[in-house]
Amino acid sequence: MQKYNFLDDYSEGCHPNILNKLIETNLIQQNAYGFDEYSNKAKQLIKNKLSNKESEIFFVTGGTQANLIIISSILRSHEAIISIDIGHILGREAGAIEATGHKIISVPSLNGKLDINKIQVALDNHNIIPHMVKPKLVYISNASEIGTIYTKKELQEISNFCKRKNLYLFIDGARLAAALTSTYNDLTLNDLSKLSDIFTLGATKNGALFGEAIIINNSTLAEDFNINIKQKGALLAKGRTIGIQFLELFRDDLYFKLAKRANNLALIISNEFVKKGYKLLDTTQTNQIFLILPNILIEQLEKKFSFYIWKKYDEKHSIIRIVTSWISNEDKIQELINSI
Amino acid sequence: MQKYNFLDDYSEGCHPNILNKLIETNLIQQNAYGFDEYSNKAKQLIKNKLSNKESEIFFVTGGTQANLIIISSILRSHEAIISIDIGHILGREAGAIEATGHKIISVPSLNGKLDINKIQVALDNHNIIPHMVKPKLVYISNASEIGTIYTKKELQEISNFCKRKNLYLFIDGARLAAALTSTYNDLTLNDLSKLSDIFTLGATKNGALFGEAIIINNSTLAEDFNINIKQKGALLAKGRTIGIQFLELFRDDLYFKLAKRANNLALIISNEFVKKGYKLLDTTQTNQIFLILPNILIEQLEKKFSFYIWKKYDEKHSIIRIVTSWISNEDKIQELINSI
Amino acid sequence: MQKYNFLDDYSEGCHPNILNKLIETNLIQQNAYGFDEYSNKAKQLIKNKLSNKESEIFFVTGGTQANLIIISSILRSHEAIISIDIGHILGREAGAIEATGHKIISVPSLNGKLDINKIQVALDNHNIIPHMVKPKLVYISNASEIGTIYTKKELQEISNFCKRKNLYLFIDGARLAAALTSTYNDLTLNDLSKLSDIFTLGATKNGALFGEAIIINNSTLAEDFNINIKQKGALLAKGRTIGIQFLELFRDDLYFKLAKRANNLALIISNEFVKKGYKLLDTTQTNQIFLILPNILIEQLEKKFSFYIWKKYDEKHSIIRIVTSWISNEDKIQELINSI
Amino acid sequence: MQKYNFLDDYSEGCHPNILNKLIETNLIQQNAYGFDEYSNKAKQLIKNKLSNKESEIFFVTGGTQANLIIISSILRSHEAIISIDIGHILGREAGAIEATGHKIISVPSLNGKLDINKIQVALDNHNIIPHMVKPKLVYISNASEIGTIYTKKELQEISNFCKRKNLYLFIDGARLAAALTSTYNDLTLNDLSKLSDIFTLGATKNGALFGEAIIINNSTLAEDFNINIKQKGALLAKGRTIGIQFLELFRDDLYFKLAKRANNLALIISNEFVKKGYKLLDTTQTNQIFLILPNILIEQLEKKFSFYIWKKYDEKHSIIRIVTSWISNEDKIQELINSI
Repeated sequence: MQKYNFLDDYSEGCHPNILNKLIETNLIQQNAYGFDEYSNKAKQLIKNKLSNKESEIFFVTGGTQANLIIISSILRSHEAIISIDIGHILGREAGAIEATGHKIISVPSLNGKLDINKIQVALDNHNIIPHMVKPKLVYISNASEIGTIYTKKELQEISNFCKRKNLYLFIDGARLAAALTSTYNDLTLNDLSKLSDIFTLGATKNGALFGEAIIINNSTLAEDFNINIKQKGALLAKGRTIGIQFLELFRDDLYFKLAKRANNLALIISNEFVKKGYKLLDTTQTNQIFLILPNILIEQLEKKFSFYIWKKYDEKHSIIRIVTSWISNEDKIQELINSI
Repeated sequence: MQKYNFLDDYSEGCHPNILNKLIETNLIQQNAYGFDEYSNKAKQLIKNKLSNKESEIFFVTGGTQANLIIISSILRSHEAIISIDIGHILGREAGAIEATGHKIISVPSLNGKLDINKIQVALDNHNIIPHMVKPKLVYISNASEIGTIYTKKELQEISNFCKRKNLYLFIDGARLAAALTSTYNDLTLNDLSKLSDIFTLGATKNGALFGEAIIINNSTLAEDFNINIKQKGALLAKGRTIGIQFLELFRDDLYFKLAKRANNLALIISNEFVKKGYKLLDTTQTNQIFLILPNILIEQLEKKFSFYIWKKYDEKHSIIRIVTSWISNEDKIQELINSI
Repeated sequence: MQKYNFLDDYSEGCHPNILNKLIETNLIQQNAYGFDEYSNKAKQLIKNKLSNKESEIFFVTGGTQANLIIISSILRSHEAIISIDIGHILGREAGAIEATGHKIISVPSLNGKLDINKIQVALDNHNIIPHMVKPKLVYISNASEIGTIYTKKELQEISNFCKRKNLYLFIDGARLAAALTSTYNDLTLNDLSKLSDIFTLGATKNGALFGEAIIINNSTLAEDFNINIKQKGALLAKGRTIGIQFLELFRDDLYFKLAKRANNLALIISNEFVKKGYKLLDTTQTNQIFLILPNILIEQLEKKFSFYIWKKYDEKHSIIRIVTSWISNEDKIQELINSI
Repeated sequence: MQKYNFLDDYSEGCHPNILNKLIETNLIQQNAYGFDEYSNKAKQLIKNKLSNKESEIFFVTGGTQANLIIISSILRSHEAIISIDIGHILGREAGAIEATGHKIISVPSLNGKLDINKIQVALDNHNIIPHMVKPKLVYISNASEIGTIYTKKELQEISNFCKRKNLYLFIDGARLAAALTSTYNDLTLNDLSKLSDIFTLGATKNGALFGEAIIINNSTLAEDFNINIKQKGALLAKGRTIGIQFLELFRDDLYFKLAKRANNLALIISNEFVKKGYKLLDTTQTNQIFLILPNILIEQLEKKFSFYIWKKYDEKHSIIRIVTSWISNEDKIQELINSI
């Protein structure tokens, strides 16, 4: 690949600390299946950030895997999920959730976020019993698919609503680090442990080779969860390989530092485009920049850089997505800015 | 852990070449989702060992994952699997196969292996239509769950039978390296590519951090297989992480050298026990030794070593399993021999 | 129930001929599981109307059952269905299809019908491989959920498109009798046997106690279909009970005569409302009338009759559904007309 | 069919009272989907026999359907069923249970019955966590597959054990009427409502056209059960058709009278064979007779009668199954006896 790539936040390997720790611990014998000392320590580091004493932590390799295990483990056969129309589980996971037997109820959203009015519509549309599935789990992503984030007030409102309506709240945190280090953010991991039944903490997109932590805050949902992990083929024999990654990412808050860097770089790019008069699809809150650009400019940028053309905007414009990461090259970013 | 561990072949990390290559390539941008250059090269190295031009290769992280994706991808809803009673899919995968909707027909076996008479019995027991599932896939493991292996003649016979009966043949190769480097072996990877519809090539138990290659030799079964990988949550964003591992393992046949070492060490241990008059459950053909030992000796050995007590043999004896690996410590093996 | 009920076409029992035949044959011993002589004869009567020699016929008790068996029997795990947003499988079957593991892709439609442009949009939105399900089956209903029907030209166009795109075409015929006897219809059972891969022929809503015939016109899809029927719990031990119903309904075309009567009565009601100046949601083509009525009139009608309030239209109007059937009482229809 | 048929208890139609009631009520409009007055009355008649106030009743058309809905409705994804090896769900339902995602653990049994020692063995064999499914539901049939029945003491013991081990107890009552009217029986419907979490009450094999009542005695398991019935395609639009059947069967205990007759006739046949010196596989307790007969005699009997050859016994003998029913012809039984 000749062109520099702003396609995503997983085009490189991992933070060097992780590789160093893999080397350092390589020949030390450990218990298999996640019962190793590194996994235990990593879980403790994460737990230290949560005051919810019920929270239990499990590690798996990826986001789709986490989503499908969580949902199939906790829902009964007739229970369904509420998600916005561009939710990752709806459009980018090859039917992973339906393959476990559950319907996802789609709700339109413009800003990538769900709110209680939208959830209420989904409930109202599913009240002909027994001819309809029963909505039981609310799925949101923070950061969202288009990089926007939830405020504490917004999340509190959804959380209260879910409790009132007897719905589970699950937050997909594939890019949670980006959300929690956004300049617009006022949420903490501890808040999430109190406001949600389950959330995930993605590492693949923030400096790990792979890895997703599943935090179950509602202890009844944690029962036998590890059997479900095994059943879906997600239990690594050498669980240490994930444990070590989270250990390094949560030692000295490296996890948040890496995400903060990605966010800052995104803001620099975003601001430069805006200065030059180009429009954003939405405010750049995390490490994804959605720009409405003339097709002519896009073609020109594509000569030097790779990025994702999100969709057509009008005859002469398209929306593109530029993603920065913990390892984005600052020289290349400068080169991009100079190319506008 | 104070005691040296002969529990399994996945208590340590991975071969140093893999870590070195991870470091060397770490910051090179690559396509995601397995379309990286390392995965491509690794697949080419494996293909070079197969003369079957139809064979296609896919990488996933683990064995249960490989098994469930293969089976759910190729079977129709009413089709079932034939396996011996101690098959890994039957007893050690937490219902992973049934969770995808398929029944496994269990056939008793003493030596860990299936043969055409046993398959015929399974067919005969499932001929009341439409009240019974339709047996469609024969599942065998090489090496088997108790370390025995298939000869070329045995496999040829099963393969011919399956073709005649319109059954798929799938070989679980979680410990295929051990099988192919056994002193009793006369099979090659190329043979497997011609005799089976699908086989897997395990790396977790032979020097990788994780990783399983799926080799589909029947091209109609490979169609859309990658969507099934994604659907089951098994598609790594940084697919390079598996590609690099197979690249290193198949460069200069490291994969086979590591397995050969494990087998040799197992034979040394096995021979020493036999010399001292102890009996084996079956001939030691690969890196697993199944010994019938007096409980008194077992207790004594347990003070210094960890191993798995397979099951009770009689009032005074039990069967234990000792596993050697690519990295087993020769001093510790000597210490074990001295303790007999 | 005091009020006369126009809620649906299944509020009464069945046509007397069926009960008479049940009595007549009651004590004659027959083979179980659908291998009885009545089922055989009934299938022959239906086959006589199809020139497609490949067509095979199976009987089940209901429509949701038929839909879920068909779809789970013929689709692979990653394959999906395309349906309009108000398709029965999407909103009125409690997640039956998803429970077998398949995603339904929803396409908006105003007139209850699908067309090739809409199908193409669904295909275009599912081309990011391997992150998306593969659309493989097109699901349409004739008559549609809102009573509209397909013309031969429309169906021919969809059929050709599906063949070109390698998609299966499945027609849900829960109200097929109503469609084929509509004054707007130019299709025959024989046309359906050539234009679709599978269609169903509903009897529950047209004079039977229950019963749905599944006609598979693509013989590769019929293989082992009966095992799938059994697996989903849809194989009646006394299959004669369905066989006898279809035997009576297809003797002397009773099936079509009953539907024709229902359609005619619907047209009478529909015309009377139109004469009085009320608007229809769409032309009344079959036995369902969708009327936009003032809420005041609705309240008044509800004193004497039961019907379904489909949805709110504006502040002062709602859409109601009136359904006629093979057994609708003409006096009550006159009473309804007089109440306008 | 020329030969008289002792193959099963579902070769004829239904008790005349049912057909008469279908005729009598045929044109009365009723609510659909089981909310009709006949279903309500029938449920009340059954409830009158149960002192357990929690018991809730649902109607479906068949046994496989009942079994798969019950199991998929109440078990979580990783939970499994314990059944004896010849359990109906294991060998005669085409993988219906596995198709909903659940593994059935098979336990050998000679007399068709399960006991707490056998259950304990299944638990002991599934204690390697998280590599194994979790046994959660005990499945037994009364009468069993080979016609034997449970005593109150036996059932009490299993029930207590299940409560202690936190296992659900589900009794498949496809032939429950035969069991409860056996001369060996000391159980009542009321006992079952207290000793089991769920049981079914089969009608297909005891005088109905079809129909199975599901009695849920553990109220937490009844929540949303009707949605699961709909999801599996088991909700009849004209639910009255089942309601009327149970109404007639439970009016004046017809249900028990019919079963008693079948049992009595079986005993007569059984005694005659024994008198003539032939051996039974097990005591004839209900309406199934399992006889060990010389092949020569079998061939001779087959000239006049149809019955099921269960399996080979030795070179010169086979085991046959003769089934009597509510409608078995006494002349034909005499003819059979005369043919011995």
